[in-house]
Amino acid sequence: MNATNTTELMHTLGQQALAASRLMARASAATKGRALRRLAALLRESGAPLAAENAKDLERARANGLAEPMVDRLKLTPKVLETCAQGCEQLAAMPDIIGEVSGLKQMPSGIRVGQMRVPIGVFGMIYESRPNVTIEAASLAIKSGNAAILRGGSEAIDSNRALAALVQQALLEAGLPADAVQLVPTTDRAAVGQLIAMPQYVDVIIPRGGKGLIERISAEAKVPVIKHLDGNCHTYVDDPCDLALAVKVTDNAKTQKYSPCNATESLLVARGVAADFLPQIGAIFAAKGVEMRVCAGSRALLAGVAGAKLVDATEQDWFEEYLAPVISIKLVEGVDEAIAHINRYSSHHTDAILTTDHVHAQRFLREVDSASVMVNASTRFADGFEYGLGAEIGISTDKFHARGPVGVEGLTSLKYVVLGEGEVRG
Amino acid sequence: MNATNTTELMHTLGQQALAASRLMARASAATKGRALRRLAALLRESGAPLAAENAKDLERARANGLAEPMVDRLKLTPKVLETCAQGCEQLAAMPDIIGEVSGLKQMPSGIRVGQMRVPIGVFGMIYESRPNVTIEAASLAIKSGNAAILRGGSEAIDSNRALAALVQQALLEAGLPADAVQLVPTTDRAAVGQLIAMPQYVDVIIPRGGKGLIERISAEAKVPVIKHLDGNCHTYVDDPCDLALAVKVTDNAKTQKYSPCNATESLLVARGVAADFLPQIGAIFAAKGVEMRVCAGSRALLAGVAGAKLVDATEQDWFEEYLAPVISIKLVEGVDEAIAHINRYSSHHTDAILTTDHVHAQRFLREVDSASVMVNASTRFADGFEYGLGAEIGISTDKFHARGPVGVEGLTSLKYVVLGEGEVRG
Repeated sequence: MNATNTTELMHTLGQQALAASRLMARASAATKGRALRRLAALLRESGAPLAAENAKDLERARANGLAEPMVDRLKLTPKVLETCAQGCEQLAAMPDIIGEVSGLKQMPSGIRVGQMRVPIGVFGMIYESRPNVTIEAASLAIKSGNAAILRGGSEAIDSNRALAALVQQALLEAGLPADAVQLVPTTDRAAVGQLIAMPQYVDVIIPRGGKGLIERISAEAKVPVIKHLDGNCHTYVDDPCDLALAVKVTDNAKTQKYSPCNATESLLVARGVAADFLPQIGAIFAAKGVEMRVCAGSRALLAGVAGAKLVDATEQDWFEEYLAPVISIKLVEGVDEAIAHINRYSSHHTDAILTTDHVHAQRFLREVDSASVMVNASTRFADGFEYGLGAEIGISTDKFHARGPVGVEGLTSLKYVVLGEGEVRG
Repeated sequence: MNATNTTELMHTLGQQALAASRLMARASAATKGRALRRLAALLRESGAPLAAENAKDLERARANGLAEPMVDRLKLTPKVLETCAQGCEQLAAMPDIIGEVSGLKQMPSGIRVGQMRVPIGVFGMIYESRPNVTIEAASLAIKSGNAAILRGGSEAIDSNRALAALVQQALLEAGLPADAVQLVPTTDRAAVGQLIAMPQYVDVIIPRGGKGLIERISAEAKVPVIKHLDGNCHTYVDDPCDLALAVKVTDNAKTQKYSPCNATESLLVARGVAADFLPQIGAIFAAKGVEMRVCAGSRALLAGVAGAKLVDATEQDWFEEYLAPVISIKLVEGVDEAIAHINRYSSHHTDAILTTDHVHAQRFLREVDSASVMVNASTRFADGFEYGLGAEIGISTDKFHARGPVGVEGLTSLKYVVLGEGEVRG
């Protein structure tokens, strides 16, 4: 497909999405629920044809020499499809927030002023590998009354086409426009450049993928981007704290899984508890093969731990998101230094304090400038499902618009509604 | 000042603002209120020295041949200063929303999850002429717990410097950092280019000025921009409606003032009421010298109005923000065509329906995709003061983040807070 054709194709998709978004915005909760439940049923009925399409992607991936863990991520297993179907049903069962009017107040002039929650319009989603993201994005678009243009990874194009066809079937059967969810049918890379530069059709872009992809899209986009950059999450063990709780939570935050963005990458420890705490957590890390990038003070306290992999931390370590069995460890004087360190080095994703001191907890909550701030809980809790959002389309590390896990509400905006009885300005 | 010096200067301002923003974020409501009330007192006490500085700007403006209406906008009269002082006191008296936690709910895992309202951090404001904007921006920064970097117009530099000095004095006397509000001290235009390209220090840019300025800044900014583009506002006179109400409100929406962004620029009239309504409003427009850019159908109905200035509307007229005694007028079949026309041509600022039909009113409120949608009220009500926000830093025509009049809340973000008792992910 040549460049002119791709431009034309993307403009057509944009126009169709905009038109569909008008109809989605006024769709009733019942209609949207019907589409979501129908989609769940279609996913359960279509195991065989979906497996056939998915097999094409898997075969191509193996032929291209893709590593097996990457091939795994492409697989549409019955379990993956069932999870997708359940996600659709959960969204259908949630209250519909579109059209809600909040804060309607009478003003001195006589007018009543409030805010109505409405869909944002059209979002563009750019993602890699896992084809189940197609269903997550589509179901969130339907629930939030938006239209979506989806651009999945080229390695999953056959699976994505088959899934998108089911989405459009469910939309049509519910009486909604098929164009409410459109998959970019070409793998031409120029399509991404077009998608992020059509402010006349697309209101926001949501990229999901590596930091490089997201930085490139943010730099080039002509519309707002809900960015999820890195998750350099901190756990700070305060003085005073409950040592047993601190050991349990820190262990979970780092080692329950190494690859999620909400895993703890940096451990700060107040000097007053370090001599008691560090050898205990150090023994766990040693046993699990977690390499420790340590400051001089923590090295001294960890030196006696059998089998500990200790490496002197560099300045760069305090910025690092390892996504691996590696953690940086630093002693701090107390909550002031911990907050200052986190505000300097954190990626503003999720940071936690483990403490028994009320004032320290309140200061940490208020002053740490991150999307999620936690007291006495594992940073691993930072996701849309655990927060009760029902589903998430991404986790925003921005402060503008949506912050933290982004669910239905992050795909909406509040407009002012004014109800009068003929009032005029004096 | 050469380019290197400007770059260094702006980076210094950015660093200072970031440091000050940390202190502002944890300032108590009482401290911020003290600073605002002290600023009000200083404005009232400083009439003479402010007038002396203001005189330099006025003299330079006249010497440069600035038109007298433009010179007027530069004047810091006692009335302007008193309005600024009252604005500061009103903000001081409003509840402080910083630190509010909303929606704290217990999740199945045991953690409690809510959202805390926090300052956005540092905002940059770029504005023209009127020096009182310096006080509006400064007082909103203080109330919202943000730091601000202010870049006023070069024509008001002496007034702005004097006002900014009072702001810093008030901050210091209240125990807050003077750097919380910094005026860019140079009129070098390169400073604007720097200010909008420092994402490491500045979280959001708020430009106030002509459409050209705002489009240029939006195109070049490396941080989010709260945009206020044009206000092509519509009043739609529905069938059925209260004719007397419709005449009164339409007259006010167009003619109470011609220059504000919330004045109605385009009038849509349902065919069923046009023969009754148009001659009445046409007579008022004719008497007030308002030129009418009309479709063929409305021309026929207005032809008999004595003194009416009728011009055939072109396609461009439906897009136009006149800010002048000119209005475009179009007949439509009914609410469907009105909504479709508005969603196509409106600048998404403010649009109103005048109707007695409940279903039409609800459809208009829900389906018109604008920052403010109104029923039976003058579009002129769309501003922060009339909406009870206390003050506004601008009116956003974007759907992302803040929409419509932007007050304290638009300068904040919601972060997630998680309160646990040692919970871990299973």
